Amino acid sequence: MKIKIAIVGYGNLGKGVENAVLKTPDMELVAVFTRRDPASVKTRTNVPVYRMDAIESMKDKIDVVILCGGSANDLPTQTPEMARHFCVIDSFDTHAKIPEHFEAVDAACREAGTLGIISCGWDPGLFSLNRLLGQAILPDGKDYTFWGRGVSQGHSDAIRRIPGVKDARQYTIPVPEALDSVRNGEMPTLSTREKHTRECFVVAEQGADLALIEKTIKEMPNYFADYDTTVHFISEEELKREHAGIPHGGMVFRIGKTGADDENTHIIEYRLQLDSNPEFTSSVLVAYARAVYRLHKEGQIGCKTVFDIAPAYLHPASAMELRKNLL
Amino acid sequence: MKIKIAIVGYGNLGKGVENAVLKTPDMELVAVFTRRDPASVKTRTNVPVYRMDAIESMKDKIDVVILCGGSANDLPTQTPEMARHFCVIDSFDTHAKIPEHFEAVDAACREAGTLGIISCGWDPGLFSLNRLLGQAILPDGKDYTFWGRGVSQGHSDAIRRIPGVKDARQYTIPVPEALDSVRNGEMPTLSTREKHTRECFVVAEQGADLALIEKTIKEMPNYFADYDTTVHFISEEELKREHAGIPHGGMVFRIGKTGADDENTHIIEYRLQLDSNPEFTSSVLVAYARAVYRLHKEGQIGCKTVFDIAPAYLHPASAMELRKNLL
Repeated sequence: MKIKIAIVGYGNLGKGVENAVLKTPDMELVAVFTRRDPASVKTRTNVPVYRMDAIESMKDKIDVVILCGGSANDLPTQTPEMARHFCVIDSFDTHAKIPEHFEAVDAACREAGTLGIISCGWDPGLFSLNRLLGQAILPDGKDYTFWGRGVSQGHSDAIRRIPGVKDARQYTIPVPEALDSVRNGEMPTLSTREKHTRECFVVAEQGADLALIEKTIKEMPNYFADYDTTVHFISEEELKREHAGIPHGGMVFRIGKTGADDENTHIIEYRLQLDSNPEFTSSVLVAYARAVYRLHKEGQIGCKTVFDIAPAYLHPASAMELRKNLL
Repeated sequence: MKIKIAIVGYGNLGKGVENAVLKTPDMELVAVFTRRDPASVKTRTNVPVYRMDAIESMKDKIDVVILCGGSANDLPTQTPEMARHFCVIDSFDTHAKIPEHFEAVDAACREAGTLGIISCGWDPGLFSLNRLLGQAILPDGKDYTFWGRGVSQGHSDAIRRIPGVKDARQYTIPVPEALDSVRNGEMPTLSTREKHTRECFVVAEQGADLALIEKTIKEMPNYFADYDTTVHFISEEELKREHAGIPHGGMVFRIGKTGADDENTHIIEYRLQLDSNPEFTSSVLVAYARAVYRLHKEGQIGCKTVFDIAPAYLHPASAMELRKNLL
């Protein structure tokens, strides 16, 4: 009997989950729930679409609900609400608000006897896991996280809000010299500017003041002022043709010292190169949804994160097969 | 109260554990056990050294025994024997015999109510973990493991057994073109020869037939015949000066496809660059010894592997701190 998955929210992430479930031998997608008019939403694989409020009537048809809404407005309320009725998983990625979100989901899960995993993707998620492992194994050392080359949705949106901008795409790019220094084990101290550059492709409205747009971008506090930023004005056609994808990635490093006189240096690098940020996040969600199902079957409840999940729960093979083939 | 660690076997690995425990805030080394005459063994930090058979009398002074012997002759008997009295951890690395070793340690642990972790280092260990995670997250894909650049003890020993060879050091080296192809997401099919080369530094006895030694190395089945092998004859002084270290490392890749038409490629790379193979393995053992202690405190018994350990058990910080600072 397959693990029955439901998706809440059918955007890029929800579509990614739909595709990712098809790649698994032991899971099936039973329903998509949306706040839009279900008649207006057509799923790629013809999975039925329902109004959000229909979900409670389908309790016995769903094992795990995968929440695919946004971290700013959807997940803070949706995940705890859904956890009152279902085992849940989300990719909540507002790092500063994770403790608060955890408490809300944990309370809902414990009251309902359900299990939830929050903040499960690649950062937070796999990158977090590697930060933890690196510190645990090499306690005397330094962490580095680089992001990119990849599209930052938040920075692209910030550019789009500037008057005279029709559309924009922003790439976050690690500085090659900084990466080289870290990979060489030099344990550099790096400023924000030394770690990443930002490259912007902007489509301007006809007659817009390009110099002013460029200045506004480069001086924007928090988003761009602390970085070396490049701005390219391009046509709408070029943006559609060359910048339609949502690639991303990055690296987590741990560099640590061992030995009687700290004479030995060790470098751990975890690197992701992703053609599609939402599809990879979806793939992580689906693997951890398997763990949600299995742990709840064992009687566990409450909110968990990637830190609490033993890896064997993520893989469809048995413990014996895993030891034989992968250890 | 600190976690009390004992070391069995005071070679490179045992010395590495001694140093690694000093880097932790929550563990202390209480004893070293050896099959040699304890009077002949001086520990770097003056930890007391005892004869192996004294260990049973120290049951209440030790929380976790870290076994630092060899996989060929020591661990298959030592780990299950110790598990009859103590919680244990080893780095047993004979991949083909892991299921058998697991059964022996599991039976001993269950009878005694102890907990053990076997095959815990970087391969098997962290590399295994990344093979599992990669397959779970990207089920439609391919695995690649590369080792090196690093010293293979087994291959160095094989050269030393050739008549006329006084000493030798063998480096396993990933083929750069193969690495590039994998990192580019090309999912190549690679033969043994296409993945690694082998470089040998050999000190010959005076008057030895160098051409014959080189031929014997290059044609040695299993060890060298399937690889492009380079042999350098050097002086004993040069070997001591340039090849005294035991560096190693490597990479585990998972390349997978997602999307409605498999149009997106994702590359996960886990890379280690280690100045000292035994010291890094020791560091992994010490982190997982923390998990042995904590899980046993929770009442768990039996044999486990890295696949069964939730990451939070490895880090000294509390679950709340981990979520706040590392997620």
